Amino acid sequence: MRTLILGGDGYLGWPTALHLSDRGHEVAIGDNFARRQYDHEMGVESLVPIEPLHTRTRAWHEHTGRSIDTFVADLTDAHATFDMIERFRPDTIIHFAEQRAAPYSMIDREHAVYTQYNNVIGNLNVLYAIKEIDPDIHLVKLGTMGEYGTPNIDIEEGWLEVTHKGRTDRVLYPKRPGSFYHLSKVHDSHNIEFACRVWGLRATDLNQGVVYGQQTPQTALDDRLATRFDYDAIFGTVLNRFVVQAVLGEPLTIYGEGGQTRGVIDIRDTVECLRLTSEQPAERGEFRVFNQMTESFTVNEIAKVVATAYPGEISIENIENPRVEAEAHYYRVVHSGLVELGLTPHCLSDTLITSMFDVAERYKRRVDREALLPLVNWRRTANRVRPAEGQPEWSGDELLSPSRSAR
Amino acid sequence: MRTLILGGDGYLGWPTALHLSDRGHEVAIGDNFARRQYDHEMGVESLVPIEPLHTRTRAWHEHTGRSIDTFVADLTDAHATFDMIERFRPDTIIHFAEQRAAPYSMIDREHAVYTQYNNVIGNLNVLYAIKEIDPDIHLVKLGTMGEYGTPNIDIEEGWLEVTHKGRTDRVLYPKRPGSFYHLSKVHDSHNIEFACRVWGLRATDLNQGVVYGQQTPQTALDDRLATRFDYDAIFGTVLNRFVVQAVLGEPLTIYGEGGQTRGVIDIRDTVECLRLTSEQPAERGEFRVFNQMTESFTVNEIAKVVATAYPGEISIENIENPRVEAEAHYYRVVHSGLVELGLTPHCLSDTLITSMFDVAERYKRRVDREALLPLVNWRRTANRVRPAEGQPEWSGDELLSPSRSAR
Repeated sequence: MRTLILGGDGYLGWPTALHLSDRGHEVAIGDNFARRQYDHEMGVESLVPIEPLHTRTRAWHEHTGRSIDTFVADLTDAHATFDMIERFRPDTIIHFAEQRAAPYSMIDREHAVYTQYNNVIGNLNVLYAIKEIDPDIHLVKLGTMGEYGTPNIDIEEGWLEVTHKGRTDRVLYPKRPGSFYHLSKVHDSHNIEFACRVWGLRATDLNQGVVYGQQTPQTALDDRLATRFDYDAIFGTVLNRFVVQAVLGEPLTIYGEGGQTRGVIDIRDTVECLRLTSEQPAERGEFRVFNQMTESFTVNEIAKVVATAYPGEISIENIENPRVEAEAHYYRVVHSGLVELGLTPHCLSDTLITSMFDVAERYKRRVDREALLPLVNWRRTANRVRPAEGQPEWSGDELLSPSRSAR
Repeated sequence: MRTLILGGDGYLGWPTALHLSDRGHEVAIGDNFARRQYDHEMGVESLVPIEPLHTRTRAWHEHTGRSIDTFVADLTDAHATFDMIERFRPDTIIHFAEQRAAPYSMIDREHAVYTQYNNVIGNLNVLYAIKEIDPDIHLVKLGTMGEYGTPNIDIEEGWLEVTHKGRTDRVLYPKRPGSFYHLSKVHDSHNIEFACRVWGLRATDLNQGVVYGQQTPQTALDDRLATRFDYDAIFGTVLNRFVVQAVLGEPLTIYGEGGQTRGVIDIRDTVECLRLTSEQPAERGEFRVFNQMTESFTVNEIAKVVATAYPGEISIENIENPRVEAEAHYYRVVHSGLVELGLTPHCLSDTLITSMFDVAERYKRRVDREALLPLVNWRRTANRVRPAEGQPEWSGDELLSPSRSAR
């Protein structure tokens, strides 16, 4: 099975590439290294040092004898996108290659426009490439549980059976997301469903919960195979950030009341979900949706899990919520589809968290404490993210330059 | 009341500008003349000759003594967009300024990307401009009934009360549109709802049916005040196209079985809906949705109305459907919101159609019969729209050039 992983140099794309290569897929990675560029822009770094992609793939080859092809391509560049898919001829395209941070998209107009342009247009180019090169390719697209928002009814897997005024239909699950980033994924989902309906493409949309963890059996083989560990307020996910705060002896900072409930998933389950989905593709014309999460917790509960597991003293601090979101709400999610495909979930246990403490402890001298502060306020539109002196100015429009625009 | 009409040089924007100016609004128009550029690209022209915008506004001033300000601005250019809104300081922004033809968006990848880029990014820039310049400005956004698709349940006005597993919520009405154009408006609606929810903006989304007619009392005052009459298969709406086919003695061409049902509205009602909506704005934080249509007909019924009204012989021909759509389906739409604001609908009557026959008769020598052929097939992705020799090649990416990109 030939699997092309777009965004394969990122936090989850890289461990997925290793997991699938380990399990016998012929793997190629496409990436434009945008994620590394955001680090330079924001003035932060992954807690765990990561190697350049060429060093990573070389280390993997040394350990396993397996090769991973790499393509440098920006998906908003249609020519590069078509060329990559034409040359690799995948059976499956796993598409992680989107700007994935809600706070990043809410910094200001430029970042909102960049996020929607990059994500929506890039995904459109992938859809056209599949249609024109080989409509049999299975698109596995990373969405987010954040697309749904927090409705007062149970969240189903992408579709909803509705009875209204005595009539019934199966409709796309109505969405009400919480940032311009989450919106970009809602737009993608609509575009993909249309392509399945009109062109007979096959696609699986994976609405993923908040991922925690940093190691998989493959990334743990060698420091050069490590994936990112983001702890900053822009790209860090909540549990990872709490682990770093714990190790630093800083209070775990909860936004608002902390009753926000989120679906979560262990990084080892993420990579396995990608394998299961790739190896059991959607049918031609099918727009299949799974909720890729294994458990739900409130932010307060996540903080408590971290505080209980940590051997030292921990304080918890509720700070003003920089986001606009419900802080207490109903949340019940159906997520049986991936279990039916064969997933055996890892549950959030002390064991995993303990290994995360070890990672954070090892690299804690690399932490920039200021990066933990949530500087992006949803209510403002001109957030200054890195007020430090000497910080380069950046405009999202640089990424809309002609050489990058769709050709 | 100060009203800024984006896309005010277009088919409906222009008559709206005249109607509101007539009714005492201080009106300004913003336009980038993209609609006129599409004519050059497609090698077609409005059946009724239209004057340049400066001639139009001069003629209006001659007749009424009223002035209409004009701004040349591309909404994907944030600087120009902010500058226009800052200078005019409207109470209401009526936003018609989007690529509005489903077939145009389905020509090929370039046109799909152009449509979503132009519409989604332009609208994002408008939202940010309102938030930053004056969040009290009421955004009146033109959507389309095509956003809903053809669900098997009644279509409500933007929101739906859902009961699911014993719990109830008011959700955004689930949408399943039929082209990349219609999708762009779905994306806009989601972005606008978010801006209302998070920033407290006020917006009305008008999901408009298929508009027919070409004259309003104001445009009929003087030939120089005429608005467009598109009869071609790309931009022409179905009833207008049938009228031209009738006058030419050509068969009325129905795509497929003709059981497709569509909401329709008279152009005189469109402009009145815009007045009613502007003068009775949404509340701060409210995302208000109206279905801007007055009646529903199948395409077969529309053809029959035209054939019956026309004094001569008419034949009707069912041709292969170039679109992917249900040709027989349930269709029942709630559209009481605008009536509650005061709309008294014009119904599709022989009188209106007779006046359209007169217009078509007067200009029928201007018709290019080949432009009536539907050359854009939804199932293909590289449609050749104007195969005539000497036709200039065009790429959507020219519109993504740096001078046009968001600044």
